[in-house]
Amino acid sequence: MAAKNSEQSYLIDCLQYARWSEKIFSEMREGGVDAVHVTIAYHEDFRETVRNICDWHRRFRVHGDMIVHAKSANDIVCARETGRTAIFFGFQNPSPVGDDVELLGFFYGAGVRFMQLTYNNQSLLASGYLENADSGITRMGREVIAEMNRLGMVVDMSHSAELSILQAIELSARPIAVTHANPASWKPTPRNKSDRVLEALSKSGGMLGFSIYPNHLRNGSECTLDEFCQMIARTAEKFGVDMLGLGTDLCQDQPGSVVEWMRRGRWMRDESAGGAAAENAEFPRQPEWFSCNRDFRNVASGLRAAGFSIQEVDAIMGGNWMRFFKSSFGG
Amino acid sequence: MAAKNSEQSYLIDCLQYARWSEKIFSEMREGGVDAVHVTIAYHEDFRETVRNICDWHRRFRVHGDMIVHAKSANDIVCARETGRTAIFFGFQNPSPVGDDVELLGFFYGAGVRFMQLTYNNQSLLASGYLENADSGITRMGREVIAEMNRLGMVVDMSHSAELSILQAIELSARPIAVTHANPASWKPTPRNKSDRVLEALSKSGGMLGFSIYPNHLRNGSECTLDEFCQMIARTAEKFGVDMLGLGTDLCQDQPGSVVEWMRRGRWMRDESAGGAAAENAEFPRQPEWFSCNRDFRNVASGLRAAGFSIQEVDAIMGGNWMRFFKSSFGG
Repeated sequence: MAAKNSEQSYLIDCLQYARWSEKIFSEMREGGVDAVHVTIAYHEDFRETVRNICDWHRRFRVHGDMIVHAKSANDIVCARETGRTAIFFGFQNPSPVGDDVELLGFFYGAGVRFMQLTYNNQSLLASGYLENADSGITRMGREVIAEMNRLGMVVDMSHSAELSILQAIELSARPIAVTHANPASWKPTPRNKSDRVLEALSKSGGMLGFSIYPNHLRNGSECTLDEFCQMIARTAEKFGVDMLGLGTDLCQDQPGSVVEWMRRGRWMRDESAGGAAAENAEFPRQPEWFSCNRDFRNVASGLRAAGFSIQEVDAIMGGNWMRFFKSSFGG
Repeated sequence: MAAKNSEQSYLIDCLQYARWSEKIFSEMREGGVDAVHVTIAYHEDFRETVRNICDWHRRFRVHGDMIVHAKSANDIVCARETGRTAIFFGFQNPSPVGDDVELLGFFYGAGVRFMQLTYNNQSLLASGYLENADSGITRMGREVIAEMNRLGMVVDMSHSAELSILQAIELSARPIAVTHANPASWKPTPRNKSDRVLEALSKSGGMLGFSIYPNHLRNGSECTLDEFCQMIARTAEKFGVDMLGLGTDLCQDQPGSVVEWMRRGRWMRDESAGGAAAENAEFPRQPEWFSCNRDFRNVASGLRAAGFSIQEVDAIMGGNWMRFFKSSFGG
């Protein structure tokens, strides 16, 4: 177990999409990870998502000594007490819901606690960051936000376009999250978030999870721990510590075919996909200081070295997510 | 049978969504209707659409003396020779395809020859006319247009927003259709089409089907045959006769619950739907001169009275659609 700064501090990662295995769950335990928000749908439709949930139920049975399905903040406390990691379900795309607003309640009942209103493309709800145009929140999007607010399912706008994010913050009666992204002022890429978005997020009580996916990092896979932690320090200076957490976007052990699926789904024709070149896509190499769930101790050390107090490090490593989870899940 | 102006003229209605029955098929025969494009999906998903196709296969079996499933322009000729009405399938929404571009080929194989890129709302492909913002054709929309072009499935933009229509005309390698709408210059409503759209449609070899749905008519249900035919005459003066046809949008015998389904689908919460008031929704009353498939003779007479030649009347009543079908269906 990693040394914890205090009994009350929690280590929470608000986004992972690993190729789940006994090894990874063991590393979560070795790393002292109390809770992880895991992605259970990118492009999956309703039925495929149900299958993914069934796969997780099997993992909870087989690896019940290490992981447990969590639906509330208190489930993290229970997981800690029993020496396990709490697993929260989330969608990175509203595809499982299709055009049926009632399915949100169905999936809430199945334990889903986060949903991105878009992945990279336009959805029925909002615009993804890779579209040429950003039309904001749609008619159905307004209905969905109202229903997610009622249920206590977190609106996640990590992959959405600027106007769509700003409108979601405005329309949502409850704070929203960008579970995995970094400030665009540090690493300018449309996937990272502008100061305008971060300010609106901060003012509304929302949360930002810092990503350690190389494409979101300055210098990519070569980004140093110090650079990463200095970026967090600059973000804290601008927007305060309270909205900051981690959403590492760790895609450990995933084959290149999964990158292909994430990018192309079923919406792109073979003719548009680039043929053999596309088939050779690979996930980028992780920075050496963060390659698995044992490495959170490096991040905590880096934050201390960057000047954060012990209390601030605790808040960023999980305390802020814990507070957000407490007020976000449930009606 | 209605008197035909010539042996070579065809009577084609490029949009109906009736509550199909033996009575309606009999009226098609009495009215001398050679072909009808029927809507087989509004909000239906893949599986529900397959069910609707199965329902049509049953109708073709039971009423095989009056109707026949058509997939090509030549099928209209065959239908005429055997005294039947040719039925073409179309979607008013891409919901049956979801996010899977390959399903277009599947549905093409099942006989689908038209697809609207949107119904009233934002879709994965384009913006519907009731959205606040119109972001045009999406990333997936471009893929879908290319695939529809390849297959020979007609892009229909009847319910789409202005920019989305203009971009679809531009992006599509083959002429597109607005199967059921009228000029907004005559009846200003966002569902009708601007002169800018009609001009782009005309210049690109596209088609406009005039609607007799009361909400698209000046004076609604009270619109006179003369007003309707004068509108067609003015449209012909501006854009020529070649792109003009009929797409009556006849929703004969449909109960009010179907209007509710069309408007609300599954995307709107009960809380937003207006409760009891919404449940009392009804289809508007048809103008007295067009209430069923026997009444096309009135429209033909009205067009003559409005100054069109016999040849022009033939073209508008079906000849133009026949030419468009010949060049549009198939690879």
